[in-house]
Amino acid sequence: MSAAYQKLKERFHTLSALSGADSILYMDSMTVMKPGSEGDRAEQSMAIATAHHKLLTDPAVGDWLAAADADKQNLSAQDRVNLSLMRREWVIATALPEDMVREKARLSLEGNNLHTQYRDAGNWAVMKPIYERAFALSREVGDILKDRLGFATAYEALLDQFSPGLKLATVEREFAALEKALPPMIAEAIDLQGKRPAALPIGDVRLTLQKRLNHNLMMALGFDSSRGLAYNGDMHPLSDGTPDDSRLTTRYKKSDMTEALYTTAHETGHSLYEQGTPRAWRYQPAGHTMGMDIHESQSMVMEQQACKTPEYLSYLSAETSRLFGRPADPALSADNLARTLFHVEPSFIRIYADELTYPGHIILRFNLERDMIAGRINIDDLPDAWNDGMKKTFGIVPPDPSKGHMQDVHWPTLSIGYFPAYTLGAMGAAQFFAAAVKAQPEIRGEIAGGQFKTLRSWLEKNVHGHGSLLTQDQLFTAATGEPLNARHYMDHLSRRYLGHDFKP
Amino acid sequence: MSAAYQKLKERFHTLSALSGADSILYMDSMTVMKPGSEGDRAEQSMAIATAHHKLLTDPAVGDWLAAADADKQNLSAQDRVNLSLMRREWVIATALPEDMVREKARLSLEGNNLHTQYRDAGNWAVMKPIYERAFALSREVGDILKDRLGFATAYEALLDQFSPGLKLATVEREFAALEKALPPMIAEAIDLQGKRPAALPIGDVRLTLQKRLNHNLMMALGFDSSRGLAYNGDMHPLSDGTPDDSRLTTRYKKSDMTEALYTTAHETGHSLYEQGTPRAWRYQPAGHTMGMDIHESQSMVMEQQACKTPEYLSYLSAETSRLFGRPADPALSADNLARTLFHVEPSFIRIYADELTYPGHIILRFNLERDMIAGRINIDDLPDAWNDGMKKTFGIVPPDPSKGHMQDVHWPTLSIGYFPAYTLGAMGAAQFFAAAVKAQPEIRGEIAGGQFKTLRSWLEKNVHGHGSLLTQDQLFTAATGEPLNARHYMDHLSRRYLGHDFKP
Repeated sequence: MSAAYQKLKERFHTLSALSGADSILYMDSMTVMKPGSEGDRAEQSMAIATAHHKLLTDPAVGDWLAAADADKQNLSAQDRVNLSLMRREWVIATALPEDMVREKARLSLEGNNLHTQYRDAGNWAVMKPIYERAFALSREVGDILKDRLGFATAYEALLDQFSPGLKLATVEREFAALEKALPPMIAEAIDLQGKRPAALPIGDVRLTLQKRLNHNLMMALGFDSSRGLAYNGDMHPLSDGTPDDSRLTTRYKKSDMTEALYTTAHETGHSLYEQGTPRAWRYQPAGHTMGMDIHESQSMVMEQQACKTPEYLSYLSAETSRLFGRPADPALSADNLARTLFHVEPSFIRIYADELTYPGHIILRFNLERDMIAGRINIDDLPDAWNDGMKKTFGIVPPDPSKGHMQDVHWPTLSIGYFPAYTLGAMGAAQFFAAAVKAQPEIRGEIAGGQFKTLRSWLEKNVHGHGSLLTQDQLFTAATGEPLNARHYMDHLSRRYLGHDFKP
Repeated sequence: MSAAYQKLKERFHTLSALSGADSILYMDSMTVMKPGSEGDRAEQSMAIATAHHKLLTDPAVGDWLAAADADKQNLSAQDRVNLSLMRREWVIATALPEDMVREKARLSLEGNNLHTQYRDAGNWAVMKPIYERAFALSREVGDILKDRLGFATAYEALLDQFSPGLKLATVEREFAALEKALPPMIAEAIDLQGKRPAALPIGDVRLTLQKRLNHNLMMALGFDSSRGLAYNGDMHPLSDGTPDDSRLTTRYKKSDMTEALYTTAHETGHSLYEQGTPRAWRYQPAGHTMGMDIHESQSMVMEQQACKTPEYLSYLSAETSRLFGRPADPALSADNLARTLFHVEPSFIRIYADELTYPGHIILRFNLERDMIAGRINIDDLPDAWNDGMKKTFGIVPPDPSKGHMQDVHWPTLSIGYFPAYTLGAMGAAQFFAAAVKAQPEIRGEIAGGQFKTLRSWLEKNVHGHGSLLTQDQLFTAATGEPLNARHYMDHLSRRYLGHDFKP
């Protein structure tokens, strides 16, 4: 191992630990910190970003990369992957002029503040200039990065920032398949739903009982609470931290115990991914989790797959009946839980959308942001383009921008290229779960008993434990025998909502 | 203002925010974090230290300092102070070779771990090499720093690291006065104590009641809970954080409500100092709190002065009788509270020592560490020198090293030069409190009503609000009319323990 590569490992170790510090401070700010401390926290986060940037763009790093590259034949295959991930980070950090990095941070903060202030009022006149600058600056950033990273378009470079290795061609191909398949599925699901009795309300469940239920699920999913924690209390749901200090929060609703339970399943899935990254590569780029799409697949495999299987709903029915002291309550039957969880109804707001209509919201955003970055749609056309898309996808038009194109924080905070990860994650989750159950059919029986050990081990071995050592294609092919595709997802949706495998 | 000085201000702003991040992470690790996350946290803390060191020793900083010095006549007096504090930090950071800095951090961590493991067993054979290396390395560090900072001896340079601006001559002179005055005072106090009835036990007090009492005190002392917090629960008592995010913890003992109450007074005193630093100098060296001795004076002015005055004890008696629902309980009388709080008894362990014998413990440690650094005592002589000192000071000899020279974590973690701050702080507290009451006699009446507003304002105006803009001598002279000295402290101890002013 060359001295230069050793130096790089030390430097990236420091960088990884700095990012970890920032993650813990972020979780603290969302849980423990008082509002009057926001200024100090923003300064701390900026100082860590400044230090991170300085240490990464230090001229020595460029020299070490050149020297390590020249000596590459003496590195192991995994070290070569690690080296190429180092180079990627360095290219991104050195590609953008300092002024641009600062402006990006500033604009994102401003966008976030204005969004919080003006979203609910749907005040597009105030927000439009921010959206315009966010798209313009993102385009500039994407143009620089596409040249440095070798992409054909600015949007591909932006997509790659959030989900490294995810190809635009994959997104376009699989989204096209979904765009075609989903409308008739939604129509059929609503039709079937109309023929069934409506779900009985589950009713209020005391928070102490909900917390016990959620804690049990977290533990059953395999969360290692000796090196991580769930904050106690009702909070905006989040998961962040480091592999050995993974933290999560849950939102509780007295009248809907499923909200907290599935939030916990989701956030625990994220945490398990962090906790399962390879110890030998800890603090190195190759040891980190992959992009947002893979991260989302690991939350979704728990939330949407394992914990919503018929097997788990049977278990949950028995468990809640016992824990809540409501034996033989029809509201807690597996059938009623399924009717509660699988209700389909087109709606305006993405974050409240059901599983079956959710991808429509994402595909709309993807098409729009890609075309905005490419300059095929301009800011003045955005509201109409949004409403047209909603009409085409769901047959409904939002009554005002707060329920339309202004609802999400992503665009005004320059998270352009992020949205596809949500649906790619759901897709990946279906594919991973199908492969896991195929490889180890005993998983279903375990889940019927409220246990997830074999599933967890399969994920650890086939996903978590690889860190970033594999490309996306390598990861999916090794784990599932095929690259990421929508087939398993459509099968899953068809089975759950239509009662049969997907029929094109 | 020169461009170079502006650059320095930006850089030191980042450094200050990085230190703030580390303080919050430290508080998190002592409160929220799980034990299995210690490794990640240590890496984060080291990464922040590495980044801090890199940014401070960056060659550009030296250039900016030279340029700003050359243009000094154009700076305001306060900016010149800020510039000299910047230079001091830079000199210290650049004085020590990187290997030495790393070895210091490593040895301190090792010393801490071994202390935790072997202290209770009093295993000197295992600990001796660590103590030896700690003193040897500290001597090397002190030797380098004394030349760079212009001190006569290595020990003075070490003392200055913890309590910048505190002169060795002051410590030696005032400690000599105390060393002479205290033994007869202790003897007389014990004699008087023997003639009074023993204190009645206060008995168990529910933690919910104790917490309410403590919360009320924190608020009355003026803690701003919109930008800082007390962690809820029974924890090792601490205060840390940043001016706008000051945090503290309290240790609760069911059978002794005074322990938590005075811990809270102490830690709140620290927090008030942080919260009161000058906003115009936030994130600059001139805006930071001064050294450990001044910090300790601000915790002690609340714990040992204001909250143990006869006026406050009367208030506390009424308040606890009411809150605990124990009217006219003699155990809660002001007299009995005083007898409980002011019990004097020579003992082995510093941290459990009473107020009157405490300085003896510190003076012993000061004499020993100064002579160890000077090479006048060597490691083999340490155990005997300790025991001789205890015999001479208190007439008792510890039964084993765990109750003797091995009891504190300071030496094995290279905090050599720290100890004097405890007693200098107690001394400063007496001097500040006397000056405050003299300037604004209404303070006593307010305290009798459980209020501290005028005292708090006086401290903010005369101490907190100066940040590090004044030297120690300037600070004490401006606030109290004289430099730091033991006279007010001896007066205070005489009045409290002997019932009259100090008579030499």
